[in-house]
Amino acid sequence: MAVITLTTDFGRRDHYVASMKGVILQIDPAAVIVDISHEITPQQVTEAAFVLRSVWPAFGEGTIHVVVVDPQVGTDRRILAARYDGRIVLVPDNGAISLVHRDCRLQELYLVQNHQLFVQPVSATFHGRDIFAPVAAHLSRGLPLVNVGPPTNRLELLNLPAAQASAADGLVGQVVYIDRFGNLVTNISRGQLAHTGQGHNGPRVWIDQRDLGPIRSSYASVARGEALALIGSADLLEVAVNQGSAAEHLGARVGTTVQVK
Amino acid sequence: MAVITLTTDFGRRDHYVASMKGVILQIDPAAVIVDISHEITPQQVTEAAFVLRSVWPAFGEGTIHVVVVDPQVGTDRRILAARYDGRIVLVPDNGAISLVHRDCRLQELYLVQNHQLFVQPVSATFHGRDIFAPVAAHLSRGLPLVNVGPPTNRLELLNLPAAQASAADGLVGQVVYIDRFGNLVTNISRGQLAHTGQGHNGPRVWIDQRDLGPIRSSYASVARGEALALIGSADLLEVAVNQGSAAEHLGARVGTTVQVK
Amino acid sequence: MAVITLTTDFGRRDHYVASMKGVILQIDPAAVIVDISHEITPQQVTEAAFVLRSVWPAFGEGTIHVVVVDPQVGTDRRILAARYDGRIVLVPDNGAISLVHRDCRLQELYLVQNHQLFVQPVSATFHGRDIFAPVAAHLSRGLPLVNVGPPTNRLELLNLPAAQASAADGLVGQVVYIDRFGNLVTNISRGQLAHTGQGHNGPRVWIDQRDLGPIRSSYASVARGEALALIGSADLLEVAVNQGSAAEHLGARVGTTVQVK
Repeated sequence: MAVITLTTDFGRRDHYVASMKGVILQIDPAAVIVDISHEITPQQVTEAAFVLRSVWPAFGEGTIHVVVVDPQVGTDRRILAARYDGRIVLVPDNGAISLVHRDCRLQELYLVQNHQLFVQPVSATFHGRDIFAPVAAHLSRGLPLVNVGPPTNRLELLNLPAAQASAADGLVGQVVYIDRFGNLVTNISRGQLAHTGQGHNGPRVWIDQRDLGPIRSSYASVARGEALALIGSADLLEVAVNQGSAAEHLGARVGTTVQVK
Repeated sequence: MAVITLTTDFGRRDHYVASMKGVILQIDPAAVIVDISHEITPQQVTEAAFVLRSVWPAFGEGTIHVVVVDPQVGTDRRILAARYDGRIVLVPDNGAISLVHRDCRLQELYLVQNHQLFVQPVSATFHGRDIFAPVAAHLSRGLPLVNVGPPTNRLELLNLPAAQASAADGLVGQVVYIDRFGNLVTNISRGQLAHTGQGHNGPRVWIDQRDLGPIRSSYASVARGEALALIGSADLLEVAVNQGSAAEHLGARVGTTVQVK
Repeated sequence: MAVITLTTDFGRRDHYVASMKGVILQIDPAAVIVDISHEITPQQVTEAAFVLRSVWPAFGEGTIHVVVVDPQVGTDRRILAARYDGRIVLVPDNGAISLVHRDCRLQELYLVQNHQLFVQPVSATFHGRDIFAPVAAHLSRGLPLVNVGPPTNRLELLNLPAAQASAADGLVGQVVYIDRFGNLVTNISRGQLAHTGQGHNGPRVWIDQRDLGPIRSSYASVARGEALALIGSADLLEVAVNQGSAAEHLGARVGTTVQVK
């Protein structure tokens, strides 16, 4: 048995997530199922890619990550089964794997095509229950990854914005995710920041021309209700408001420019 | 130990669901608890009936389904313990069992009245914690169903609309559930549709006089943002919008008429 | 292995809760993790204190309760590891423990300072993943509580309103929590009410000068849509509307006065 994680845009009001779990438990009653998020904005593959990448370090080798954000369900879009850094990912071939693919080592890659593993008949609208869940459960029970279908060496990747460094502008990146607190997560990494120096004599962070001062060490480094920038838990630069919502306070959105200079 | 599923209108903000789980785990630490939904619209028994029926095929024999959507909690309304197709259901006798009862084979039916199984003292407002949870946990540990209380042969059933077939109008049904994506699930089944034929020369689907064309094979059979009809994952006719919300797009509600002709 | 419960303000859309679970399962794969609530209003320590106290009786000895509502994360605020009535609590030292502390017996109290137990490097913003989760998992595996850090005998407590009794005014309390149904939970306990008598010749309940009549035995004691008062599942006086929302119906908020006279 293994840990199986679920990342979907199914929400929690309907029976969809539970139906996946029921199918998994019928095949592998010992599977440990962990919900990552079921609140991915419907059909937002980019958001799924970010959440999967963010949770990645917290789960160990042998984990089976199942991602079902799948606007093309029922078409001939492919389903991938990949092994990265000793973890397995089952994911539609729509780019949701992009950030894990960028940062982790790909070890095996297959197409999920072994119909013997599927719930029959396969519905046109719910491959989460009929394909992803039973395949994950068979893998959890020890089925070798090679048995899910033929190998492939091609996969779809999203064209995601990357932070750019230049002598004139410093680091220029974007807000790529906004969390439940209204924190603005950017695509500027700790590694990139290491080259700019830090501290009060170091560079300052700007969002939409607004000066947020130097990179701080905690939310409480500024007064309650004040905006700041700090390095968040995914080693990415974040813009936040101490005990408030930066998204509301600053009117920022995914795509808003953040500069470190 | 068994799989115990929970379907309630408790939401997830308060402690209610967790209190049920704590009671279960004190009695049967090996129980595997699966949330079906806690977002049933408060006191909407019909919605609970639909969600329970939808998730039913995904869970195997021996599963214990607990449903607590219970507007009459604290009155003398009865609580049922039933076995259908080898699964157990604990449910207030308010009609939430109606769709499972319609489609599955009833094997045993009892009233939950054995106070020795309850958390004492039983509160007036939270039978989920004080009655349903401990009874489910004792059953999970192997208590025979007959021990929960006296047998009965009477239960409340909802008077739910059924799709009607006629030579003049074809099949006329209703929207019975709207999911998180805005998909409109109807009460027209695959079996009923089999008698109408399908495909481009077959019948067309209409919602509120609007022509949705023939029954399609996937959401992506039409352009993004276009409405369509297809057979959904519960073998019921669904009206959807490709990568959009049919509920918003078509202004439909539970009860809106859908016709196949 | 033990039952580990999680109470946070992280919501369920982001990866935060799942990251805590991943870290726990890497250290103790046999831990049973139960979500209490992740919908605590962001940074509302008082709400967390109420939810923890409410769920307390449902979980048995040996349970490890983890509370991460932590506006001061990243500062030098302390983290407590306490044993009350045979249960362990890991909680920021910000008062979230106040109601358990008021009602339960404190047996041991330590500061969480043993860095060897933490995920390294510890981030500035996510001690839930980097400190609380791994410490809980090590305790679940059997680490003695004394090993988490030095003992202390000091902890922060919230200054919470208490219901007051007087001959002139009877019992005067406040709404302290509003649940998903709009039920108004007060700080007036069953014990305090015992001294006032009950029933139709007993005292009446008033909210904002509005007469709710005597204390009732169930929601259904009044007509649908009517307001009432009853003793809820936490043995506290509640104001409710039968099959409706008292919060909406009565325009009440946390802090609204409730009187029993």
